[in-house]
Amino acid sequence: MVSVERLSADQRGPAQRTTAEDALALEEPLDIRVDDDTLAITMRTPGHDRELVLGFLVAEGIIQSRDDVSALAHCGRPGDPGYANTIAVTLGPTARLPASERVRRGTLTSSACGVCGRQSIDDLLERIPKRASSSGETLRLNVILEAVAALRARQPLFDRTGGVHAASLMDFDGAVLTTFEDVGRHNAVDKVIGSQLLAGTLGARRRLLVVSGRSSFEIVQKALAAGIDAVASVSAPSSLAVDLANEGNLVLAGFVRHERAVIYAGSDRVI
Amino acid sequence: MVSVERLSADQRGPAQRTTAEDALALEEPLDIRVDDDTLAITMRTPGHDRELVLGFLVAEGIIQSRDDVSALAHCGRPGDPGYANTIAVTLGPTARLPASERVRRGTLTSSACGVCGRQSIDDLLERIPKRASSSGETLRLNVILEAVAALRARQPLFDRTGGVHAASLMDFDGAVLTTFEDVGRHNAVDKVIGSQLLAGTLGARRRLLVVSGRSSFEIVQKALAAGIDAVASVSAPSSLAVDLANEGNLVLAGFVRHERAVIYAGSDRVI
Repeated sequence: MVSVERLSADQRGPAQRTTAEDALALEEPLDIRVDDDTLAITMRTPGHDRELVLGFLVAEGIIQSRDDVSALAHCGRPGDPGYANTIAVTLGPTARLPASERVRRGTLTSSACGVCGRQSIDDLLERIPKRASSSGETLRLNVILEAVAALRARQPLFDRTGGVHAASLMDFDGAVLTTFEDVGRHNAVDKVIGSQLLAGTLGARRRLLVVSGRSSFEIVQKALAAGIDAVASVSAPSSLAVDLANEGNLVLAGFVRHERAVIYAGSDRVI
Repeated sequence: MVSVERLSADQRGPAQRTTAEDALALEEPLDIRVDDDTLAITMRTPGHDRELVLGFLVAEGIIQSRDDVSALAHCGRPGDPGYANTIAVTLGPTARLPASERVRRGTLTSSACGVCGRQSIDDLLERIPKRASSSGETLRLNVILEAVAALRARQPLFDRTGGVHAASLMDFDGAVLTTFEDVGRHNAVDKVIGSQLLAGTLGARRRLLVVSGRSSFEIVQKALAAGIDAVASVSAPSSLAVDLANEGNLVLAGFVRHERAVIYAGSDRVI
């Protein structure tokens, strides 16, 4: 909580002022160290750092299963300065940083940056997993519409602060599997993905990712890396998000509101 | 324009479908090369790349004036593949990449990442410019309220796509100096800052930056680096944005809507 001044306009004179307490969305840096070097620094809402880091590593193509990580822990001891903001990962023998990752150590990703650290654009595009052709599974429009309402009903931090994004994973029958909130939309998605890795359900079929706000390239890229079949967002997708969804054979829905949705990719699978 | 399917719910049967053309917010990578190496790759809306790159370099503390750049151009020739998405900067003798920048070359920043590429959190905090104590200039609440309305009236891309952010620079009398739209809020801010560098007005006093959406740490950090005095956003700031605004002696207003605003920092300078 912080003290703020609430000002309102008054045509007859100076602004009217009241002092109040205000809840802020927490944003703090998380230094993600892999095999002793900083791989990325992300500005995130503290909490579920384990899920965040595991999801980030999946989305970056560095790990595919729990076995690829032999240790993961916050550095130092509770109470030490900066303790909660540094996390160290030791990769197992089956995982390996690509050569380019070794070169570009020491990056900082912001609260809205999920694909930082690529050596080049070509690198990035090459690393997008290719999906098998359509599984033939169809997704009902009503599930998409209800998914967005279900996400909105699971945003207690947003209700208090107005300053955080959220992401939910659902199945194609509309069951909500997990939801996370974070100042960065991409962090919320990483936490969803990491939670699935921990639960042993990463890559399960008939999964729908729902995000607050817009769908950018990076959201679709993360969904593809995690084997998710469909992405729905409350607001617009970008051009590159649509291109990537088409290339990756992913259902992409946007502007899901007022009992309507726009299907940008994979509309043959939405009924 | 892309072809999309608009689906609406129909309780009596399957979804109703119509095919339509839809305008998408353009998102493409920009590879920013400085002295022959990739410094960052940002996902941005093409256009005003020159302003974007110059503003980015100012915000990163790499340049302070036009003299710090001896050349800036897209690589290759118009029509070449990838021509418009790579830009090369040659720094002048007065500018120099910090040592840590040399080490961490080859990063990718996403459409919402503006502070990527830091070697460590300490590095980042050290590099925040310290501002002189308050200039004593006051900002009227009505200017803040009208600024947000003025920004909203200058978002033609948003009106068409619903998928872009925007940033305006105004003076304390309410005059709109410049506005840019971009899929990344931080890119829009970089473009504002770069345009001021080109105009020779960077660091002018009594400047208010208005951004769509929320204020994160990076938005406040960029404003401080550019010598801007106040930041207003339509929605919430993060905790770190408030901390940094207080530390940097910047006026920070949030939730500017319905003739009201919440002042999170510098409220003694808002009347």
